[in-house]
Amino acid sequence: MTDPVPIIGGTGALGYGLALRWAREGMAVVIGSRKAERAVEAAQRVRDAVPDASVEGLPNGEAARRGPIVFVCVPFRAQSETYNNLRDVLAAGQLVVDCTVPIAAAVSGKATRSLGVWQGSAAQQAQEMAPDGVTVIAALHSVSAPVLADLERELDEDVLVCGDRKADKARVAELVERIPGLRAVNAGALEMARIAEQLTPLLISINVRYKAHAGVRITGLPNADHWR
Amino acid sequence: MTDPVPIIGGTGALGYGLALRWAREGMAVVIGSRKAERAVEAAQRVRDAVPDASVEGLPNGEAARRGPIVFVCVPFRAQSETYNNLRDVLAAGQLVVDCTVPIAAAVSGKATRSLGVWQGSAAQQAQEMAPDGVTVIAALHSVSAPVLADLERELDEDVLVCGDRKADKARVAELVERIPGLRAVNAGALEMARIAEQLTPLLISINVRYKAHAGVRITGLPNADHWR
Repeated sequence: MTDPVPIIGGTGALGYGLALRWAREGMAVVIGSRKAERAVEAAQRVRDAVPDASVEGLPNGEAARRGPIVFVCVPFRAQSETYNNLRDVLAAGQLVVDCTVPIAAAVSGKATRSLGVWQGSAAQQAQEMAPDGVTVIAALHSVSAPVLADLERELDEDVLVCGDRKADKARVAELVERIPGLRAVNAGALEMARIAEQLTPLLISINVRYKAHAGVRITGLPNADHWR
Repeated sequence: MTDPVPIIGGTGALGYGLALRWAREGMAVVIGSRKAERAVEAAQRVRDAVPDASVEGLPNGEAARRGPIVFVCVPFRAQSETYNNLRDVLAAGQLVVDCTVPIAAAVSGKATRSLGVWQGSAAQQAQEMAPDGVTVIAALHSVSAPVLADLERELDEDVLVCGDRKADKARVAELVERIPGLRAVNAGALEMARIAEQLTPLLISINVRYKAHAGVRITGLPNADHWR
């Protein structure tokens, strides 16, 4: 038995896709939303797609207490508000996996452009806003949400994981790699999220030109399991 | 018969690797350097490695006149000076492929960090400095120079190509794809070099952790040839 995985913003495209994929692997997930009824509805959709799914729908604040590793999958325009709302909820020792991309579309700009974040990246903003003792890891920026949410599609790509301690990243990598077709790659310190977050607008630019849902693979890495 | 490919900064790691790989494919290359004797010496090294190579070594200014598509492979600290020196040399209609990465190591910072460039990217700085009628394309940032320069190593990665016109990018893609194992991917407008250039510090951060020479593959693209 493993701990449930809370997904804050789990009704959005990326969060919902993660919930589906993990549920299919037999993992317990908790879908969080600002509105309880939307969370419950999304949980029901997961059960419809994966009949034996272990999935709950709860308000974000309650969802975030349900597991030690909390995924935050909210659009950039809601990121700061989300962390404000989680301030009294997250507890020292929890890991938060921030998937936010500061895409210019958040302020009516282009999806192929990004916004400068004062702290350097959305993930670093998350770390600044998280309560003491809560560690932020950045990941999953380059995974196509529509592909993730389509269980018919096979995944074949990497997930760049940024964080300051390898042991924390390894715990996140283990969850990421529960999803068949995803490999977690250690991309370095949390500050590298400045670059990892930029992969999304880059891939969107490629997607426009190829009518595709592109992802990223890092080539040239040794075959040995980096995480164990 | 195809036009020779001038490589400005062709004695450096990336430029020399390109020269070697193209020479092995039977293409004529012109190695440029600030110092004529270093260019001549590098050309001789190419001939030693590839006996039937068609390769010349010339001062940068002379090299740049030798072909319609000029590759600029200089370190960031020399980029501005290089374009100043090429101002009276480059002619309208030429394409310049800028491979510069504004890595913080250029000013004694870390190789996993980058510098902000006023124009947004090194490639956009190059476009601003290039003479009227000269078009800049950005490419090749993510290819490991040591791997490129080691003819024993097989390549298996993508090259992101940024530029404002697809027809120009297609001409560069054709040269890139002459090198076995490299695929050119259309990453969008020149401004996307802001992100493509950041792949280098990201890959360096990964290389440190994996003791590797990593590259990038874009997954999920259609098999059809995008360029023709």
